[in-house]
Amino acid sequence: MAYGQGRTYKKVEVIGISSAGIEDAIQQASNRAQQSLEKLSWFEVEGIRGHIGDGGKVDEYQVMLKVAFELK
Amino acid sequence: MAYGQGRTYKKVEVIGISSAGIEDAIQQASNRAQQSLEKLSWFEVEGIRGHIGDGGKVDEYQVMLKVAFELK
Amino acid sequence: MAYGQGRTYKKVEVIGISSAGIEDAIQQASNRAQQSLEKLSWFEVEGIRGHIGDGGKVDEYQVMLKVAFELK
Amino acid sequence: MAYGQGRTYKKVEVIGISSAGIEDAIQQASNRAQQSLEKLSWFEVEGIRGHIGDGGKVDEYQVMLKVAFELK
Amino acid sequence: MAYGQGRTYKKVEVIGISSAGIEDAIQQASNRAQQSLEKLSWFEVEGIRGHIGDGGKVDEYQVMLKVAFELK
Amino acid sequence: MAYGQGRTYKKVEVIGISSAGIEDAIQQASNRAQQSLEKLSWFEVEGIRGHIGDGGKVDEYQVMLKVAFELK
Amino acid sequence: MAYGQGRTYKKVEVIGISSAGIEDAIQQASNRAQQSLEKLSWFEVEGIRGHIGDGGKVDEYQVMLKVAFELK
Amino acid sequence: MAYGQGRTYKKVEVIGISSAGIEDAIQQASNRAQQSLEKLSWFEVEGIRGHIGDGGKVDEYQVMLKVAFELK
Amino acid sequence: MAYGQGRTYKKVEVIGISSAGIEDAIQQASNRAQQSLEKLSWFEVEGIRGHIGDGGKVDEYQVMLKVAFELK
Amino acid sequence: MAYGQGRTYKKVEVIGISSAGIEDAIQQASNRAQQSLEKLSWFEVEGIRGHIGDGGKVDEYQVMLKVAFELK
Amino acid sequence: MAYGQGRTYKKVEVIGISSAGIEDAIQQASNRAQQSLEKLSWFEVEGIRGHIGDGGKVDEYQVMLKVAFELK
Amino acid sequence: MAYGQGRTYKKVEVIGISSAGIEDAIQQASNRAQQSLEKLSWFEVEGIRGHIGDGGKVDEYQVMLKVAFELK
Repeated sequence: MAYGQGRTYKKVEVIGISSAGIEDAIQQASNRAQQSLEKLSWFEVEGIRGHIGDGGKVDEYQVMLKVAFELK
Repeated sequence: MAYGQGRTYKKVEVIGISSAGIEDAIQQASNRAQQSLEKLSWFEVEGIRGHIGDGGKVDEYQVMLKVAFELK
Repeated sequence: MAYGQGRTYKKVEVIGISSAGIEDAIQQASNRAQQSLEKLSWFEVEGIRGHIGDGGKVDEYQVMLKVAFELK
Repeated sequence: MAYGQGRTYKKVEVIGISSAGIEDAIQQASNRAQQSLEKLSWFEVEGIRGHIGDGGKVDEYQVMLKVAFELK
Repeated sequence: MAYGQGRTYKKVEVIGISSAGIEDAIQQASNRAQQSLEKLSWFEVEGIRGHIGDGGKVDEYQVMLKVAFELK
Repeated sequence: MAYGQGRTYKKVEVIGISSAGIEDAIQQASNRAQQSLEKLSWFEVEGIRGHIGDGGKVDEYQVMLKVAFELK
Repeated sequence: MAYGQGRTYKKVEVIGISSAGIEDAIQQASNRAQQSLEKLSWFEVEGIRGHIGDGGKVDEYQVMLKVAFELK
Repeated sequence: MAYGQGRTYKKVEVIGISSAGIEDAIQQASNRAQQSLEKLSWFEVEGIRGHIGDGGKVDEYQVMLKVAFELK
Repeated sequence: MAYGQGRTYKKVEVIGISSAGIEDAIQQASNRAQQSLEKLSWFEVEGIRGHIGDGGKVDEYQVMLKVAFELK
Repeated sequence: MAYGQGRTYKKVEVIGISSAGIEDAIQQASNRAQQSLEKLSWFEVEGIRGHIGDGGKVDEYQVMLKVAFELK
Repeated sequence: MAYGQGRTYKKVEVIGISSAGIEDAIQQASNRAQQSLEKLSWFEVEGIRGHIGDGGKVDEYQVMLKVAFELK
Repeated sequence: MAYGQGRTYKKVEVIGISSAGIEDAIQQASNRAQQSLEKLSWFEVEGIRGHIGDGGKVDEYQVMLKVAFELK
């Protein structure tokens, strides 16, 4: 890739969920999106939520993010 | 589904249009999206617009929404 | 198309990149999206960025936009 | 109207109020605006509020919206 | 109440849920909040979501809103 | 005015400017708008800016606000 | 209080109203909230509105704010 | 005009449309607004959209903007 | 809980603070809120801040979040 | 300065703090910024916060603002 | 530069002004910022405004943008 | 520092990048900013992005943040 050359990217919105933490939820979403999309280039976090189970324990992190890839 | 298990959702942005009202426009978009996407789980309204016809009559409601479904 | 008839649109987020300017970056994204999507109806600019090369020269414009098309 | 021809629209911000529901509040605002403005083309909902009366009963819906019309 | 007199209001964020529609979800939240709060004065819609069940059917509307009441 | 009765309001965006302070800038805008609009009901501050003169002295406050009035 | 020690704060949304000005409306809300909440630590202004009476006179300022206090 | 002197501006929201590009759409809206409003002072772009015609060709740019003028 | 049944949730805004990291700050806020509120269902992160101590060391993370629970 | 001539401004974000009120906090920030920056032209308020001391007394106003100056 | 290596960027907010158009205003700001900052890497448009002169003619474009550069 | 005493802070926008995670990216930015700025007091996260390398692996986290310090 060289700057200045015409090209087009697409962004897709996914939600990664993991009990291990925010970074792991992002990685999970990236792994899954990689299966059906072309090679991913970057992500942007859009929001962070999570579920709270018994006793107030955070039992999963839900990270809303956009992943981008080049349309070749 | 059990909380705490890794999983990934995808969100897609659609616009449902109906002359019957806001709820009907949402249902219309859900019906149509269901045809080409996997089983939908939820929606989020992003905006409400509409067209105004002769005599100031609102002749359709346009509801921008995101629908989400699990990437299995 | 007639107002008042139920129909559904989908919006997809793309980034057009061009060294020639903002309008050209939009046109580039529209051209590329048209190849894989159904007939596009309109676009909405979501953001404008760009790369700065040697000597402070803006060597490309990156326009984030959404393109919409009817789901027939 | 043909796309590609230069033209100008104006947007005006109104609040429609009705006890009958959200759609009726939009229609009420459109009717009233139509009296003093040129032929309206579309509306965009900017916010939804309402008044709560005795016993927690919602006794009116207040819909903030913008209505648009062409400046001929 | 007279304008110009010092007074204080409090706002509380609730989510009303109903299968019957958006207005009903608002009314449901107002009814429930009225039980434990002082007399409610108004509401402001913060967001509209919902669940989609089998066959794409919207089976409930979830309306995020703030309800306000005077602190006497 | 009684809650529950259909009625319509209009909002107009004005900027009040005063060297005396923020409240005075709001009052100035209200006074001027009152001359050409119908009886004003309320205002909403949209932004606060100002000019800085010699020696860093704030020599005027510019308050962007919306004023609302009933369309009778 | 020492930085680095785990602790939790709560924020509550109130609206202070005063005919005397914006700072007085903030103080009024703080005074009233202090009666029923624990010791307040800070406030954040969320919005400024007001009522306009006869002759365009601003007869009260309504300041929406959040007040925060430590949950001990 | 001198800074520090009380004065009031009004802002009006218009949409300029042109097939020639974004700057031309802004100029078109300014020209048209100038016909019915007092002397315009400045504009603020609120959004950029456009229509896409056959073959993905952008056939018009729609620029939402606010124009401001002094209320003398 | 079954979708489609009327029910109401409440959201409360808290700030969790921890020197151990973002996830720990969320968990700390959830633990503390659980003591005085009903059983929590989920959280939404509203902002992330922190304090910087000597030598530029981040000595605590402050996570603003909303926690939600059902009003039974 | 004449409109239409190329020139460049820079904006810097500062927080002015004063116990005397919002306008005084703005003036304080302008005074301090003027010491190390070039001649300031205008400010834009980005947020208003404050500290609450014993008895609910607001003991300082914190105004987040941007100040702008020309890069000559 | 290689992805994955720790590094830090700084963003600075500037306003470029040009009578020739939006792209030229961006280039003007980049040129001027390049004189006093380290080598610039990219820009992000934050807003577009402009001045309107006699007869409604747009006589300059003012583009608010952020420019970023690596802190080596 | 005592509340109620006039003082001024400045905020600067930086981007910290680390392959180790979000907290490490924040710490990296704080360390680097500390070298050229006065003693930092706090940070505010403005956004979280990252790069995705081969196989969908997140190979760096990019955290946009503002760091604040007192102007003495």
